[in-house]
Amino acid sequence: MDELGRIAMLARVLGASAAGVDVAIGDDAAVLSPPSGRLVWTIDEHVEGVHFRRDLASWREVGWRSYMAAASDVSAMGASPWCALASIVVPRDVDDAALEDVAQGQRDAADASGAPVVGGNLARGPVLSIATTLLGTCHEAVQRRGARAGDGLWLAGRVGLAAAGFRALERGMGSAPALAAAVLAWRAPRARVVDGLAMAGIATAAVDVSDGLARDVAHLGKASGVCVVLDERSLIEDPALLDAALALGEDALDLALYGGEDYALVATSDRPIAGFRRIGEVHGGSGLALRSASGERRLDPRGFDHFG
Amino acid sequence: MDELGRIAMLARVLGASAAGVDVAIGDDAAVLSPPSGRLVWTIDEHVEGVHFRRDLASWREVGWRSYMAAASDVSAMGASPWCALASIVVPRDVDDAALEDVAQGQRDAADASGAPVVGGNLARGPVLSIATTLLGTCHEAVQRRGARAGDGLWLAGRVGLAAAGFRALERGMGSAPALAAAVLAWRAPRARVVDGLAMAGIATAAVDVSDGLARDVAHLGKASGVCVVLDERSLIEDPALLDAALALGEDALDLALYGGEDYALVATSDRPIAGFRRIGEVHGGSGLALRSASGERRLDPRGFDHFG
Repeated sequence: MDELGRIAMLARVLGASAAGVDVAIGDDAAVLSPPSGRLVWTIDEHVEGVHFRRDLASWREVGWRSYMAAASDVSAMGASPWCALASIVVPRDVDDAALEDVAQGQRDAADASGAPVVGGNLARGPVLSIATTLLGTCHEAVQRRGARAGDGLWLAGRVGLAAAGFRALERGMGSAPALAAAVLAWRAPRARVVDGLAMAGIATAAVDVSDGLARDVAHLGKASGVCVVLDERSLIEDPALLDAALALGEDALDLALYGGEDYALVATSDRPIAGFRRIGEVHGGSGLALRSASGERRLDPRGFDHFG
Repeated sequence: MDELGRIAMLARVLGASAAGVDVAIGDDAAVLSPPSGRLVWTIDEHVEGVHFRRDLASWREVGWRSYMAAASDVSAMGASPWCALASIVVPRDVDDAALEDVAQGQRDAADASGAPVVGGNLARGPVLSIATTLLGTCHEAVQRRGARAGDGLWLAGRVGLAAAGFRALERGMGSAPALAAAVLAWRAPRARVVDGLAMAGIATAAVDVSDGLARDVAHLGKASGVCVVLDERSLIEDPALLDAALALGEDALDLALYGGEDYALVATSDRPIAGFRRIGEVHGGSGLALRSASGERRLDPRGFDHFG
């Protein structure tokens, strides 16, 4: 198939539209009529050998995961995903059937998030790489910088499970029953679209957990000029996480604090938020702390660093 | 430098703002307040070894070129570039100084186009790769599909010169005086922002020349359901192109028809457009033809095909 044939295939697989999308795939650019209010806009890139390995995920999962990582950023701003563009770099050893599977995974994720892929770019390169840019709509975006001393810290979704799943796959333990939930968490994460909308107008600040809870919450704390205190007990009460940690011989708290790619949402608010559970609170000062039965200690916000 | 250090450096180099950009680099997503009217939205990716080689362009030129390829798509829709996001994949052998030069090239191009880079993504990968997504604003976008029989075909900018420059660099002839204009055309192309705005409201259809005039005009003809006739004489009247073709021992017409990456704009209209010169006309039917002193012949719309 030549470039035009592949673009026609992608248009067929991805071809959904959304309100306000006037021109989709097929011109030099998409044409949009934005609704009133604000837009949030993100880009994320998934690179083979860095964000995924083709022996650990299907092509369809690769397409799904790359889309969801970007959609999660939109949800972390309290916005509603609207539409997306995808730039796919395709090496010569990825054939047309594989590319179609990648696109099908993007389509599945777009359908699940309510924001179709309305254009993109196709190019050659040494490894498969997918850059996804998403626009979302909102009235007021929830930023990282609004947390106040006295706010509670709230979590929607799970933390640590996706990292456990990746380790299980790396060690060839992907079919162990105790690790099934973890493997699914890594292979098929979901942007928390409904939770993102639930916190809009309530949360004072928010962030999504892509690089690890400690690291991402530290970003929020730094941007807001506050100290964030995490409650240890609340982080390790997930039975699936405890099962996975036991099966892997790893520490559940360590996975919860430093494992990334779950795309949970963390928000700060002085009241409860539907769909979120409390995992800590915001104090004056700076940095990160962990409160357990034996007291409070400072936490190092390490986590995944591409350049560490 | 770690990931946060690099992001801070990029924020410093790129950090310009624009009207309607409420939150730029530093949160999960940028926050925008769009003006009334429509938006056009594109993504383009430049991959090392495919779109550039580090021995043929400086890092700053790599940053500039990657930005301009995306900005050209916005201009081809008759829109005004508004703001951009950039996802940069950085291999281990590209150091911080090189990354800063890439960003400086993006900043130069953004300043020249009036649309700052307001966010992005940074990841590891095997080769340098830059995905640039741009938003532009307009009242009505100029699409590929509106050309009508009887319209003239109009060109803003040059064709074939960038391809000549690339061949000169490939053959180690980059310092030959007769090839200086060609080398500059390849290394420092400019999105035709002013010409794009000039054609808005006048042009019935438009496309930018990224993969070669014949190929890109064929897309326009196909989308519009018309036959496009190119005038041979008008394509080879550029003295710089003739000089470069002579120095390279190549055919000037071949370079003009099939050389890409000049980012010229081609528009159809029943009246002249300021800044554009006439290079042909639109007929009923389909396909592509070339008219010369010896008559008219059909043209094969070959050109650059990533998957050819």
